[in-house]
Formats: sequence, C-alpha cells, structure tokens
Amino acid sequence: MRDEIVRRVRQGAGAEPADLVIRNVRLFDLVTGELIPTDIAITGDRVVGVLDCYEGREVIDGQGRIAVPGFIDTHLHVESSLITPFEFDRCVLPHGVTTAICDPHEMANVLGRAAFDYFLNCANRTVMDLRINLSSCVPATGLETSGAVLDAAMLEIYRHNPKVIGLAEFMNFPGVLSGQPDCLDKLVAFANGHIDGHAPLLRGKRLSGYIAAGIHTDHEATTAAEALEKIRKGMTILIREGSVCKDLTALAPLLTPETSAFLAFCTDDRNPMEIAHEGHIDFLIRKAISLGVAPLAAYRAASLTAARAFGLRDRGQIAPGLRADIVLLDDLERCAVAQVFSAGRLVNDALFASRDIVPPQGYGSVKLAAPIAATDFHVPGTGQNQAVIGIIPDQIITEFRRATLDVTENGVQPDPQRDIAKICVVARHGKNGNIGRGFVQGFGLSTGALASSVGHDSHNLCVVGMNDVDMALAIARLTEMGGGFVAVRQGKIVAELALPIAGLMSDQPFETVRRDLESLREAVRDMGGSLEEPFLQLAFLPLPVIPHLKITDLGMIDVDTMSLVS
Amino acid sequence: MRDEIVRRVRQGAGAEPADLVIRNVRLFDLVTGELIPTDIAITGDRVVGVLDCYEGREVIDGQGRIAVPGFIDTHLHVESSLITPFEFDRCVLPHGVTTAICDPHEMANVLGRAAFDYFLNCANRTVMDLRINLSSCVPATGLETSGAVLDAAMLEIYRHNPKVIGLAEFMNFPGVLSGQPDCLDKLVAFANGHIDGHAPLLRGKRLSGYIAAGIHTDHEATTAAEALEKIRKGMTILIREGSVCKDLTALAPLLTPETSAFLAFCTDDRNPMEIAHEGHIDFLIRKAISLGVAPLAAYRAASLTAARAFGLRDRGQIAPGLRADIVLLDDLERCAVAQVFSAGRLVNDALFASRDIVPPQGYGSVKLAAPIAATDFHVPGTGQNQAVIGIIPDQIITEFRRATLDVTENGVQPDPQRDIAKICVVARHGKNGNIGRGFVQGFGLSTGALASSVGHDSHNLCVVGMNDVDMALAIARLTEMGGGFVAVRQGKIVAELALPIAGLMSDQPFETVRRDLESLREAVRDMGGSLEEPFLQLAFLPLPVIPHLKITDLGMIDVDTMSLVS
Repeated sequence: MRDEIVRRVRQGAGAEPADLVIRNVRLFDLVTGELIPTDIAITGDRVVGVLDCYEGREVIDGQGRIAVPGFIDTHLHVESSLITPFEFDRCVLPHGVTTAICDPHEMANVLGRAAFDYFLNCANRTVMDLRINLSSCVPATGLETSGAVLDAAMLEIYRHNPKVIGLAEFMNFPGVLSGQPDCLDKLVAFANGHIDGHAPLLRGKRLSGYIAAGIHTDHEATTAAEALEKIRKGMTILIREGSVCKDLTALAPLLTPETSAFLAFCTDDRNPMEIAHEGHIDFLIRKAISLGVAPLAAYRAASLTAARAFGLRDRGQIAPGLRADIVLLDDLERCAVAQVFSAGRLVNDALFASRDIVPPQGYGSVKLAAPIAATDFHVPGTGQNQAVIGIIPDQIITEFRRATLDVTENGVQPDPQRDIAKICVVARHGKNGNIGRGFVQGFGLSTGALASSVGHDSHNLCVVGMNDVDMALAIARLTEMGGGFVAVRQGKIVAELALPIAGLMSDQPFETVRRDLESLREAVRDMGGSLEEPFLQLAFLPLPVIPHLKITDLGMIDVDTMSLVS
Repeated sequence: MRDEIVRRVRQGAGAEPADLVIRNVRLFDLVTGELIPTDIAITGDRVVGVLDCYEGREVIDGQGRIAVPGFIDTHLHVESSLITPFEFDRCVLPHGVTTAICDPHEMANVLGRAAFDYFLNCANRTVMDLRINLSSCVPATGLETSGAVLDAAMLEIYRHNPKVIGLAEFMNFPGVLSGQPDCLDKLVAFANGHIDGHAPLLRGKRLSGYIAAGIHTDHEATTAAEALEKIRKGMTILIREGSVCKDLTALAPLLTPETSAFLAFCTDDRNPMEIAHEGHIDFLIRKAISLGVAPLAAYRAASLTAARAFGLRDRGQIAPGLRADIVLLDDLERCAVAQVFSAGRLVNDALFASRDIVPPQGYGSVKLAAPIAATDFHVPGTGQNQAVIGIIPDQIITEFRRATLDVTENGVQPDPQRDIAKICVVARHGKNGNIGRGFVQGFGLSTGALASSVGHDSHNLCVVGMNDVDMALAIARLTEMGGGFVAVRQGKIVAELALPIAGLMSDQPFETVRRDLESLREAVRDMGGSLEEPFLQLAFLPLPVIPHLKITDLGMIDVDTMSLVS
C-alpha cells in the first residue's frame, strides 16, 4: 500500500509518467454538468489525475469521447439473468456497469449459505466489482417448502467479508412492524450497518416505523408521491427498471439535479434478452433522459448517489484517489457506451479470458420425493366455483377469479376455450412430496405444457398446461436437466433451456442462453402462448407475498388473508 | 438494542405513544425546500416519525416554528475558543450545533496523546456529539521546539475509538507530495479511512497528487475557482468562517441546491467573543443566505452534506431512524434559533448541569528552563537592515519587511514612531532555554507588552513589546498563571486571562472568558493597540508554515525558504 500511495501521488502530481493515460476525452463534470476537455491519468486501479495533460507509460486515445464514472446497479439478483456471475460480468460490464450490488436471494432459497460462498468466490474474481448484500428473508413465508432457512447467526458469519455491504431487501415488512423475533434478530445483528428496504406501497406511520428499524433504501416505490415521501423520510430510492417491474417512467419526474442526492438506479431482475435488446443501467440512463431527466441528474444517480448511499467512498466520480471505473461515451443523451474501464483496465475479451473462473455450484438441486405421473396432477372436486389465478400481463400481482369447470374421470379439467390452464407446483427440495394444484387464466395456451424450476422465492417446480401427460413429461424433463425451462407439446419436448446451477442458472455462455430463450418464446407462441414473457410470468406465480392469488407446493394461496384456498 | 428497535418501530408506526412529540412545527424539507406542517415523534435519542400527527407521553409545543436538522461543524479546534470542551458544549450547542468534529491539535502539540485521552473523555460526556479527528501533523515543522511528537503508531491506537472519525487536516502537503516517510506512515495507517485535507492555494497536478494520497476534504479554499477545482476532483469543501480566516463571502456563489452535495461548513478557529456577537454555524447559515445562497443549499450544507462527507449515516435529516438532533427556528432566512434538541433532549441549563464533568488536564504545562530577565530579550547587532515581520490586519500571512533600527547598550531597539515592536518567543516545554528574538510592525503599541502562551502550533510563549522590562514581567506572569494572555504597562499587569489548561484553555465558564477578553482588548487599546484581535494575531506569528516571515524559539523564520533569518 505504501509504495502504491507513493506511485499515486507522484503520478498524479506529474512527477513521473502515469501507468495509463486516457488522452483526449471530455469529462462530464458531475458538479456542474460541464464537459471539460482533459486527460485522465491512472495509477494501478485508481484515477490520479484529471483536468490536466499527462504523460503515460501507456496511452489510449479517447478520441474526444465523453468520460463518465462507471455505473452502479444498486440492487439486483444475478440469478434473474439466468447466467453465472462470470457470464453476468461479461454480459453487463460492457454496458458500463462497473459495480453491481447483488442479493443472491434466489440461490440462497435453494442452497442456503452455500449460495453466499459461491457468490463471494465469484465476486473475488469477476472483472466488475460485484458486491453482496446478504439475503434477509429466506424463506419469504412459511406457506411453502423452501430449500433453506437463513437465520441471523448465519448472516452474521458473512457480515465483515470485504465484498459484503450489509443486509439485502428486508421484504418481510409486516414482520418488522409486528416485531417478529427472527426479523429482530437480523435488525439487531446489522444495526448501524447497511440494511436495504423493500416496502411496496408502504406509506404514512407504518412506513416511518419500518424506516425507524434502521432501513436505508427502497426499490419498490412505484409512484412519485410514494418515492417523495420515502426520500423525505431519509431513504435513498433506488429507481427500478427490470424485466418485470418498470418504475422509471413514474419516478423520472422526481429526479432533478436538486434531488439527485436522494435517488439511484437498480435493475432488480433483468433477463439476458432484455439486456441484449435494451441494455442495463445504460438503458435506465438513456430512458431517464428521454423522459426529460437532466443528464446531470441521471449520471449522478447512476454513480455518485449510488456510491454514497452504499458507503462506497472510493467511487462515484472520475477523480484522484477513486477507482478508475470509467465509461467512454459516443453520446451523452443516448448513453452510447463505446469503451469501459474497470479498475484501470480496458474491458475486452482478453480481460474476461484472464479471469480465474470458479466452477459452478449447486448441480443436482432438483430432488423429487418420487417420479411424477400424470395422475399426480388430477384435481379432485366438483369443478364448481373453482379458484383461478388471473394473470395480468407484465405485472406480478394477479387477480383472484372463480370459474366453474368440467369434471371427468381425471378430475377437474382445464378449458382452452376460456384460456384456463391447470397449474401445479411440485416440491423439489427433497423434503417432501408436496404437490399444489390449481388453475390459471391468461397464458393463452391451446395445448401442451410449460414448466420451470424458477419459481420465486422457494423455486419449487411449477408447471402450467392443458393436459396432465404433457405436464408430467415437462416435470420429468426438468428433473432430468437439474432444472430449467421446458415447453412440451403432444408428448414431445419442443424447446428447453437447462438451468442446472441450483435450478436457476445456466452453465453456458450468455449468448447461448439468449438464443435458447428466443427458441422457447417461439415454441410457446406456436402453442398459442400470448404472453410476452411466459416463463417470467410463470416464475412469479408461486410467490405468496404478492397479491392476490398465488400457488405453492401447499396449494392455492389467498395472499390477502395469507391462507390456503380450500 | 433489541428492545430499543421494537420501541422505535412501534412508536414510529403509532402503535404506542412516542416518548416525546414535538407538536406543531413546520419541517423544512431538505429534499424540496418546502415547509411541511407536522409533528415529530421521538423514541429515546432517535426520530421515529414525521409528516404525521403523533401521540406522545411527553409533548412539547413547537408553536409553529421551523424545524431543521442539527448543524454540524465539520472542522474546528475547540482550544481556539479558549474554553474546555464542556464549556464549548454549553456555549455552542444553543446555536444549533449538535455535532462538532474537532481536531485537538493545539493541546496535542503541548501534551501529545494525553490530549486525545482528555478530549475523548470529554466527548463521551458532552451533550452535543463531539467527534474527534486525530491530529495528523504534530509538530507542524522541525523549525521550532514542540511539546510532543505524534507518529503514526500513536495515532493508530485511537483509530477505532467510536468517537474518532479519522485523521485531521493533513497540513504537511509538501511532505505528502515529496513522500516524506512519517507522512506516508500516517497515510498508510488511515488508508480507506477518513483523512481531512489542508491544502491552501494548492492547484493543478500537485493538488491531484495530494488528493490521490486518499484525502477527502479541504477547508482552505479561499476562492470559488479553487473550491470548484477541488470538488471537481472529488473533495468535499468545508467552507470556513472563523475568527481569523473568513472564506464564506468568496465561496458562497458556489453553493446552490445543485452543488450542495459537495459543500459543508466549518469554523476552524472561533473565539468566544465572536460566538457571542455573531454566532457559530448558525452565523454561517445566516451570512450565506444574506449573500444570496438558497436556504435549501445552506441548510443542506450545514447538516446533510456534512453528515455524508464524514460517514455519519445516523444524521443529516429529520427522519425516522436518525438522531433526534433538531433545531427549531423563529426565522429560516435569519437562522434565528429558538430551541435545540440534542439526541432527543431539549437543550437547557438543567441538561448541561446533569453532565458528568471530567476534571481538566494539562495544568503546569508552562515549563521554562530558567526564569527570564529583561536582558534575555536584548537583540545584539548593528540594527542595519533588520528583518521585521509586517502584520496584515485580519490575515495570518505576514510580510517580510526590513528596517534600520537604533542601537543602545541594551542592543537593537524597537521604534514606537514607526510602530515597530520587539517580539520574542520563549521555549516553554522544559526541553531547552531557547529564545527567538526579532521585530514586528503593526500592533500599534506605544508602550508596554503583550504576551501569550497560545502560539501556533507549538505554543511556546510569545511576547511583543516596546521595552524589555515589561516583556519580562509579562513572561513571568504567564509562567505563574500556567499560560494565558497578559497585557503589561509600565511595570504593571493591566489585564490578563489565565489559560492554565495546557496554556491554551481556561478552566472558567465561557462568560468569564468572554469578559476577560473584552477587558484585555480594552487594555491593549489603551496602550495604543490598533488591531481588532491583537492576541489572535500574535498567536499566529510563530506558525512557520504560513508565509512569509515568522518567528519561533529558534529565531526569525523565512517561510518561503524554510530557513532561519540571520
């Protein structure tokens, strides 16, 4: 460190050539919003000089491009991109995201603390600075069979790991408000540290009580009024624009240079197709500016405010002493990323190739109590006034509908005419043979079945279909693959994506995953599927903390009363 | 902590009455600058509810006053107020300063690490939250005899004390730039922690090199251009308005709601007369607004930005979960402080009386090698082309002047006609019998002598006078008192202020000190004294890091060449 400080000082002061100089850029000054022609001098992983001309041992011509600080994704689940942290690194860093604060929440629900070990191992080897917030609510509820339980004592083991920031989204806000013992354990363990919030629609005194527990951020605000109340009450709002939840349009009016110290960006859940088609945090910046946000405010939110909100004092500006996380843009308003530097290294294929890749963990996580037969999906009953989950396209909340359905010797039947399919959730953590059974309206399927091992948050197997045979085949194939997505039609597997890492992530390159997802989407459309993102929509149907009607391995859940539907 | 969290959540959520409710205030919202009518609910030392009505076990009527977060003085030397930390607390907290980050730099130069022990003991018992930054440059130079040397190993002992933030003003910027070993030791010891800067007039690449060493703040910027360069390079600028250095007028134009995340306030050195006449951080806010700064920007600088720059995540807004440091104002623009709450307690005499006062340390610190006789002040030589310090009123920089002076059997003589007095510095740390001798122009004295044991930064005794007998008496009296200020005229002590705590601080109430200072000022005026602050001006004459001509116990120092004047 001593020698490094000497080198930084000498190179910053111009007493010796810098390790690297990015010459001929226009620095987008986050203080005034001016573009200032300059060189950027870099020593090791740090910027040491700006607003001046420098000599360097290595010189890269910035070609007059605009330099902005590397972007920070303040809250996301890497697992939602369906790829490993290393592939996420390779996929997202070229979009300018030099820091990502992830919550390995999905993997932790399957594997417990082994998920932290895996993510921390990866985080020490990715090019981007991957930081971890420890998953605070595993499992999300008791109304399902989860793969693991993480208590405060387990979380504390990881608290002082240098890659760990604090506690991730504290979703169990009713538990905080009611003083639930396991919530209190965690709040006490991380008191005076960082605790991320998660409080959709929470307002007024209940919001104040929740924040008073020591919670600093929130990414669930969906209206400007809600976000304003939250920042007035001391939170930093992480404006979210993911593949499912899209809040930027609603919150953009709040983001100005005057308020930018209170607002940052996050993606939460973003799949590789959307990253390819739209982008990542660069997309949020671009969209914010297109919605009328001043570039100064957008770029501050993407770096400076994010860094400050999470105590990352070594980044957020392009300035001496800070990490050399730099994005060179061809266009400021369009956030057109041309080149990215991560800790002083130009991001390219060779840099990714030089990483010391950690072997994936979590193979063989799909453990059924017994093989599934088609008859296992029979729904007994009269078919009268049957509860039916009503899908709302592009939303994760559902409607609680009722319908009367035909009954045969195989039980209550789906009805393609009314777009009502059967849906089942099969426990897959090797703990029991639970199967939850019910009906769902809105997938548009005329035939076949879709199944997924991604089913928030316990990630049991969920399958939706028009006949029990295809559904059973889909589950069998998922089990064989160790997890993934599969589409079955008339006894044949027509498309699939294996996700053998905890049943959540592929072990293949992101380009392969993207291609397989496109094939799957195509196959589902051929089966009549009408949803833009059928597997994403399916993945949220088992999540019993989001209203109104959901399904777990225990059965259909009325979320409003937190009880099983009879 | 567990029970406290439960209470905070319940009281914030309104499930039980709050410990204290300040009813009927208008909250000055630091997000938008709006005034929002509300109650403020407090549990213990924390705010738990705002923007709502609350029931409380104790209720205080805010009478429609404006509520703003408590002010933070980001850099100051308590010793410059000439009173103990407890008296400082009692004097300054009613001005709304609920947090003060002090550098016990003056006392440390006299007593070494015992100064840290004393200040930390006090800091654990003051009402205000007194925080310590550890003095980084003791002594300031080798061109004087100091009372102590603090190396990196000694500083590290205190690094993790909960009241310690980091390292205070790193004044030795030439040492940082040249890689001086003791500077590097300290930079390494506090790397990744907080290091305050001190870089007057430093610009360009040398500034970049200095910041690249890991330095985060600066309070020495005297022009808006200098401050803008520094914040662009990642520093937080602490706008200073003290008794000697006044930078607010120059820097105010830079402070807007858009730039407020980069600027905070500090007083550095402020004496109790000025605190009485003008105020403290409240004065800076008032003056900033009168200079055209938007109230939103001024109040953010005074709390939110200051808190964030120093990693004080538990304050900076009036919001749930944060410290209940609250100032109620009768007027926002005039920053008219009506009531102050410190960690949920109404500030009043009873609260101060309840403190567990620590006995002062550092008596008997004025240790002369031998008693001083008038003849010890004789200046040998021809009187030709004698070096004379030229005072510039209200500045700590001086001019290097020359004059030809009369010579008698008692050596070179002062000249009241040309306002040239003799000035001597007497070593007082018991290490040697050094006396530095020279001349100074600008005090306006026609007769008599002034002496002080406050002489930055080594705090040897300095005496200025028109005759050696009065000068010797002044030194004798200072020695007797254990330090202080004294004015002597024709063999008689006409006014004095004892500062027996390390020769720097009084052990009396601040009101007494203020009164004595006024008497001293009066007495000096009667002796012809023309300076507004003669003792403050005197105190900076031994400081050999400020250009151009200074005096230490070794003799007259040419600061530009850092050498003794022959």
